[in-house]
Amino acid sequence: MRNSLKIDGQVKTYLHEDELPKAWYNVRADMKKKPAPLLNPGTGKPVTFEDLQPVFCDELIKQELDNDTAYIEIPEDIRTFYKMYRPSPLVRAYFLEQALGTPAHIYYKFEGNNTSGSHKLNSAIAQAYYAKKQGLKGVTTETGAGQWGTALSMSSAFFGLDCQVYMVKVSYEQKPFRREVMRTYGASVTPSPSMTTDIGRKINAEFPGTTGSLGCAISEAVEAAVKQPGYRYVLGSVLNQVLLHQSVIGLETKAALDKIGVKADLIIGCAGGGSNLGGLVSPFIGEKLRGEADYDILAVEPASCPSFTRGKYAYDFCDTGKVCPLAKMYTLGSSFIPSANHAGGLRYHGMSSILSELYDQGLMRATSVEQTKVFEAAKLFAQTEGILPAPESSHAIRATIDEALKCKESGQAKNIVFGLTGTGYFDMVAYQKFNDGEMSDYIPTDEDIAKSLAQLPKVEG
Amino acid sequence: MRNSLKIDGQVKTYLHEDELPKAWYNVRADMKKKPAPLLNPGTGKPVTFEDLQPVFCDELIKQELDNDTAYIEIPEDIRTFYKMYRPSPLVRAYFLEQALGTPAHIYYKFEGNNTSGSHKLNSAIAQAYYAKKQGLKGVTTETGAGQWGTALSMSSAFFGLDCQVYMVKVSYEQKPFRREVMRTYGASVTPSPSMTTDIGRKINAEFPGTTGSLGCAISEAVEAAVKQPGYRYVLGSVLNQVLLHQSVIGLETKAALDKIGVKADLIIGCAGGGSNLGGLVSPFIGEKLRGEADYDILAVEPASCPSFTRGKYAYDFCDTGKVCPLAKMYTLGSSFIPSANHAGGLRYHGMSSILSELYDQGLMRATSVEQTKVFEAAKLFAQTEGILPAPESSHAIRATIDEALKCKESGQAKNIVFGLTGTGYFDMVAYQKFNDGEMSDYIPTDEDIAKSLAQLPKVEG
Repeated sequence: MRNSLKIDGQVKTYLHEDELPKAWYNVRADMKKKPAPLLNPGTGKPVTFEDLQPVFCDELIKQELDNDTAYIEIPEDIRTFYKMYRPSPLVRAYFLEQALGTPAHIYYKFEGNNTSGSHKLNSAIAQAYYAKKQGLKGVTTETGAGQWGTALSMSSAFFGLDCQVYMVKVSYEQKPFRREVMRTYGASVTPSPSMTTDIGRKINAEFPGTTGSLGCAISEAVEAAVKQPGYRYVLGSVLNQVLLHQSVIGLETKAALDKIGVKADLIIGCAGGGSNLGGLVSPFIGEKLRGEADYDILAVEPASCPSFTRGKYAYDFCDTGKVCPLAKMYTLGSSFIPSANHAGGLRYHGMSSILSELYDQGLMRATSVEQTKVFEAAKLFAQTEGILPAPESSHAIRATIDEALKCKESGQAKNIVFGLTGTGYFDMVAYQKFNDGEMSDYIPTDEDIAKSLAQLPKVEG
Repeated sequence: MRNSLKIDGQVKTYLHEDELPKAWYNVRADMKKKPAPLLNPGTGKPVTFEDLQPVFCDELIKQELDNDTAYIEIPEDIRTFYKMYRPSPLVRAYFLEQALGTPAHIYYKFEGNNTSGSHKLNSAIAQAYYAKKQGLKGVTTETGAGQWGTALSMSSAFFGLDCQVYMVKVSYEQKPFRREVMRTYGASVTPSPSMTTDIGRKINAEFPGTTGSLGCAISEAVEAAVKQPGYRYVLGSVLNQVLLHQSVIGLETKAALDKIGVKADLIIGCAGGGSNLGGLVSPFIGEKLRGEADYDILAVEPASCPSFTRGKYAYDFCDTGKVCPLAKMYTLGSSFIPSANHAGGLRYHGMSSILSELYDQGLMRATSVEQTKVFEAAKLFAQTEGILPAPESSHAIRATIDEALKCKESGQAKNIVFGLTGTGYFDMVAYQKFNDGEMSDYIPTDEDIAKSLAQLPKVEG
């Protein structure tokens, strides 16, 4: 008999619905040195509201450019929608702790209990709300793993908006059922690069047989938005507005930890464009910035797409087609196309400007992990904690296990909190490869990275 | 702007973990006329403990045969495991109500927030626990939709048991990724009917090209259990023990309704073998039996496999291979093989003996619904409530919508409670057919049913 089923408290902490945050937290307000502004690629000057208006919804542009307001009210309709699936639970990983034999206390904030399968719904519903409020007809977007596309499809259905999704081809092929979920919510889904846009045709011609990237899909979705009257483009990560919306994760996490009287020592999140990590850590970073508390914060990225750990902090294009503004960020270069890594949501060449600046200021650290090690961690987590995690989230699990094992050596009873961003129900092709021993790792060479970094735009910043 | 986002209270009610039931409720204890006993097919006499011992775990046999103990303690290890994913939420379907414009208040008990995607885990962990406690090496089982197989795989992994799953061939083919989830939890999965058992080979020879049925898969799993030392067979539905374990659903539902001061008028559940419906309604039926309260209780079955509404209340074999004891139940005949209906979990020819007896006593009613109507309801539910439901669960959604629309006509503000047993993430082949307009209905003819009923065993009962 397994003899390790001892727990000394509650496993899950749910806030009450009336404890849901009433405002998002904007970490930029507490940063003395602000993130570098987006630049207009034509003029080289910081983008204005008017520059962004053809692409983004008005209210979202205001949020994007607002470096000063610390708390921005969550509209009541969005809070009502949040109540469908929020507050999400903060879970004590008793069973994983026992399997590892670690003295560390491991907690995870689980964002996967909704049909998008991830935290992406937190920003999707906000962006759909503002689009509808502006009287728009529809929205366009890209999706990698498919979680963002699903979240936006759900949100668009809720508000009666048309939704057009460009899905990175490798994910489109690996996850045929994701497309059906989006269609069930009324969205149209096109594999990217496609032949339906100028930039898609160009990329297909330059890189025949390419499996695509988030950078390509963004370019296509932006082009589709500006060419159709009544449409705007929305993005699921990287942007300041997205991190703002995702702060609901961190605010709830902080409130739940306070409720059970736990002070986090180490906070861990996976990092693709930064939406989950930025949302999870914002309130904690805020405390660090205000000198109220200290936390060790760790970003985990795939070794196949290591923007923090091997990229350069510089201005770069956000998309492969170079139609978007320039952002200063840790980047591998917008021409970097990662291998067909299964963690589709982490295949972005750059990183949120906010997180890049915080990382540059030494307020957080980063590590990279290899795919097979990630799936080993995912399997252990599934077998002990009962939740089949998304490959993206499993990067954070891997790092958490490694840190918890360090605690076992050192005897430290650290409180480790990580973001379990989503479930892996649509990632079974990847799990199958792992189960069959056919999963491979891929680490770009220094030459690969130097080649794409050599194409960075020449901008002072 | 959608102008219907008004809610006047909390959406989700979660009990605290310390409010989790400490005992299962055994509705048989309150039944004056007990369900008919299982019969030994050899002797025609009620089965004894010893008859069942080669097939089932000892403790589970005791539970199976216990018609008298009203409350059976849930062992601490099982309650600890339950805390991973329980208590499950009772959700007020505000958004569905508003889309229907009904005065009814609709509540659903959502059992899908765990990796098995359904309520099946409630009994799987109990059965794995007792198997481990008995010192067994492993368990065998059948699975239809794959939810039970996944739940048992998860539970077996947790206690370190070997797990062998016979999966109905039609589901095995429609849901390739289910197999990978089970493999990730360490189970082996065989499509049924297979060529690995005597009964599988026999059925394949008699019905070449058959897509299988739960009845066939049960026979194979039982054969595999009795032929391997240290193995027992476990079953996810139909049996008294399963309804006992699933009573945790109803007990939590009742406690949550009491907490928010709501008296249910109508309780609706989908019915395959009866595990979800029996678990959900047990405590409410108990009140009816004890004369404490009255409830309208509605079972919903697929028109393609209508055991309650078109079957006969008679002794029948539980499995196609006729290796199991005889049970008195509403049945279509053990040789009835339903069409390749997508609600794999509802394709069973019979029905729980407990529910059959309650139905026969007029304590509940039943209806049947057609598949395309079910998916229309599923899509509306997904778009309004944000959860993509399992096809099985969507039978209950269909009936709930129909009843809520009747309330709209009559102006009655009934409190309707239904069981949302699971999510449809692994049912996207069926959703795709529906999205493409290629879904068909199938209703067996009277001759189809008469033919299989003609083969009922000749037993007094």
